[in-house]
Amino acid sequence: MNDFFNKDIISIKDYTRDQLENIFEYTDKMMALDPIKRREICKGKTLSYLFYEPSTRTRLSFESAIASIGGNSLGISDISSSSTQKGESLGDTVKIMSIYSDVLVLRHPLDGSSRFASEISSKPVINAGSGTEEHPTQAIQDLFTIKKEKKKIDGLKIGIVGDLKYGRTVYSLLSGLGNYDVEVHLISPESLRIRSDSIYDIKKKISFTESTDIEEHIDDLDVVYVTRIQKERFPDEEEYLKVKGSYIIGLDLLQKMKDDTIILHPLPRLDEIATDVDKTKNAKYFQQAEYGKYTRAAMLGLILNENGF
Amino acid sequence: MNDFFNKDIISIKDYTRDQLENIFEYTDKMMALDPIKRREICKGKTLSYLFYEPSTRTRLSFESAIASIGGNSLGISDISSSSTQKGESLGDTVKIMSIYSDVLVLRHPLDGSSRFASEISSKPVINAGSGTEEHPTQAIQDLFTIKKEKKKIDGLKIGIVGDLKYGRTVYSLLSGLGNYDVEVHLISPESLRIRSDSIYDIKKKISFTESTDIEEHIDDLDVVYVTRIQKERFPDEEEYLKVKGSYIIGLDLLQKMKDDTIILHPLPRLDEIATDVDKTKNAKYFQQAEYGKYTRAAMLGLILNENGF
Amino acid sequence: MNDFFNKDIISIKDYTRDQLENIFEYTDKMMALDPIKRREICKGKTLSYLFYEPSTRTRLSFESAIASIGGNSLGISDISSSSTQKGESLGDTVKIMSIYSDVLVLRHPLDGSSRFASEISSKPVINAGSGTEEHPTQAIQDLFTIKKEKKKIDGLKIGIVGDLKYGRTVYSLLSGLGNYDVEVHLISPESLRIRSDSIYDIKKKISFTESTDIEEHIDDLDVVYVTRIQKERFPDEEEYLKVKGSYIIGLDLLQKMKDDTIILHPLPRLDEIATDVDKTKNAKYFQQAEYGKYTRAAMLGLILNENGF
Repeated sequence: MNDFFNKDIISIKDYTRDQLENIFEYTDKMMALDPIKRREICKGKTLSYLFYEPSTRTRLSFESAIASIGGNSLGISDISSSSTQKGESLGDTVKIMSIYSDVLVLRHPLDGSSRFASEISSKPVINAGSGTEEHPTQAIQDLFTIKKEKKKIDGLKIGIVGDLKYGRTVYSLLSGLGNYDVEVHLISPESLRIRSDSIYDIKKKISFTESTDIEEHIDDLDVVYVTRIQKERFPDEEEYLKVKGSYIIGLDLLQKMKDDTIILHPLPRLDEIATDVDKTKNAKYFQQAEYGKYTRAAMLGLILNENGF
Repeated sequence: MNDFFNKDIISIKDYTRDQLENIFEYTDKMMALDPIKRREICKGKTLSYLFYEPSTRTRLSFESAIASIGGNSLGISDISSSSTQKGESLGDTVKIMSIYSDVLVLRHPLDGSSRFASEISSKPVINAGSGTEEHPTQAIQDLFTIKKEKKKIDGLKIGIVGDLKYGRTVYSLLSGLGNYDVEVHLISPESLRIRSDSIYDIKKKISFTESTDIEEHIDDLDVVYVTRIQKERFPDEEEYLKVKGSYIIGLDLLQKMKDDTIILHPLPRLDEIATDVDKTKNAKYFQQAEYGKYTRAAMLGLILNENGF
Repeated sequence: MNDFFNKDIISIKDYTRDQLENIFEYTDKMMALDPIKRREICKGKTLSYLFYEPSTRTRLSFESAIASIGGNSLGISDISSSSTQKGESLGDTVKIMSIYSDVLVLRHPLDGSSRFASEISSKPVINAGSGTEEHPTQAIQDLFTIKKEKKKIDGLKIGIVGDLKYGRTVYSLLSGLGNYDVEVHLISPESLRIRSDSIYDIKKKISFTESTDIEEHIDDLDVVYVTRIQKERFPDEEEYLKVKGSYIIGLDLLQKMKDDTIILHPLPRLDEIATDVDKTKNAKYFQQAEYGKYTRAAMLGLILNENGF
């Protein structure tokens, strides 16, 4: 029986390094499979999605993942048009969705929502983003991308750039990186620095630097992970514009990086990365989106098949 | 050829007791089938849904039902974002949807809408709720739940509690119960009493009592069917709050019921049933939702297969 | 290898007469196939849709087409609830959608949007309506309907009635007709005459007349293609009402047509065609919608299968 069979995916913190590596191996296997064989893996299985925050990107990634392995999907992409408008509780909605499907994908603004849902659901629950810190399948996608593109994770110097305070992606990625021997450089405007209490545990495992200056370590990084800086976080627009400009990855900044530095982004992107970077060999953010489809397909395949695939 | 092949489902009043029992037998068969065999029943068939009122619950029940028997679904879950905004008639929309699918599921606020649609459609039409009184697939789901959990329907004492004036579910259930030898106790606030003209025919078939006091018959009921009391039905909030409190099913009220009384609810629930009742053996409303998936799958299997399944 | 394999469908102008006839032959083949065999054609393939303008009709036509040949669909039917709200570019969204699917269907208000998307996408792009003039799959559907119902296109007299200025359908149809030896009569209110610069090239190929009077050629037409006149195009309502009334196809006008004139409409219809015309043998607009499903299925089958089907 595989480790993930019939299990929830709630937090990246629940996984050991061996388990992560196991998912990566299965993702490699998934990618290598003939599409026709792939469609047998979850043939006729149904995934339901329940999104209390809109996230078209994440929903479609799951929908394409389950479709690629032969299953189908149904659900609520926009809770405002659903029964919950009539005041139904999260618990009741989860119970019903778990009756209607074999696995439930939940996106919810509150911390702990997925853990709560998993206790109520009769089917495995996958956290597709909750609260301020958890987005485990994104972290697995990001780690897999790094591993695949750099052939390893240990020993890498990884810069994480942008809004480090509000992006749940960053916290999940850092937790995942805690399983590896990496050097992390956090680069953000002063007002968007990482919440240090949230990375208390991780700090014991990996070495950090914090900086507001993107150029400080740029010539030494193996991976530059860029996140969106949201305008609405700033008290006034002038402040925003000043900050925004200083973190744009363009060809000029790219020239200062090592030849084989890879640039990642969880997407959607606004102008954090100039579009002329897209064509360079360093740009791996669209590749990252494709890997996301396959890591999710692998996780679904493991959750829904006792003996893996 | 089975009785339901290529036929519409418009009103619960169209069915004889034998036909209802036949659907129940097929539902049992559906539930007993291996999921892999189940997916062969409507393999590649397409269900379309056309919802002029939002009802996520009902839509997803049909979507999961058709998925479980190998078909797929497409349609309009929110008419406000569709061509009908441009003023297209119900008739034209129905005609097109019937071209795009093998069976059409319609939800519409007007009485008679499904009958009208069935005359226009080239494919079978299933009424998923229309007007003030019709919701035949919900009634079949409810009757099946009672039969399954109590092993019979004849001879039962059934209490129906809550808003009996506006809930179309109640009227359809009563019409269905008209085929059985049951005793029905209607319990509602004075202002939400059942519309007596609507049950004129049923009154001739089964014995009724009406009451505003939930405790009157509570120790004698086999089934307690609870419905939502909607705030917006009351002229002032004080009146609402008074009424609301007196119909909540909690552990205290449960203690006054027979040991094997079952509690049903069409869902979504607000606070008509306290959540600590959920864990009791009397609570069958989530089971009822699961049966709803299988009764709908059985009906679809019969409509779309000449020789049943 | 078939001509359409792995190719985009951007503009009706890109097709030769032979290619159009080839698609028609494949549509005939598609319609003749047993539904079970049909479902093998694109088994397990995924179509994604990306609609920057709502068009339920077109979206469902594609969804039913891919379902009928065994594939599935996912996407964004209402861009306002998607990541693009966060400001993502069309290019990025297209790139992602092409990762998530085997073929991408795009609806967009701007001219050139599909051409642009096809240059970015790693998968074939189908234009489901763009800008003011392009709607190639609608034109193919319309041409196929004429061919099928009149057994030929050459030699026909075709009237196109209604709003000729703003309907992209009309421009695409005219471009398609440019491949045939037809006589076209354009009938519209003065203020909704066709934009003559847009049909400059077509004018060299087929003979035109323009008129505001629908009765002028009505007794001589083989095909009457009716389009919707949109109220919002008129500066004042009185003007609109005057015009509207004079272009309604009713039984009285039908009497003046030849016995075998066919009436087409891209739908949705408002009251351009009286509903009592629906039952006449001349009414072919619902048949046209059905052909639309099969022409799209044929095109998808050709695009996604190297050797056709």
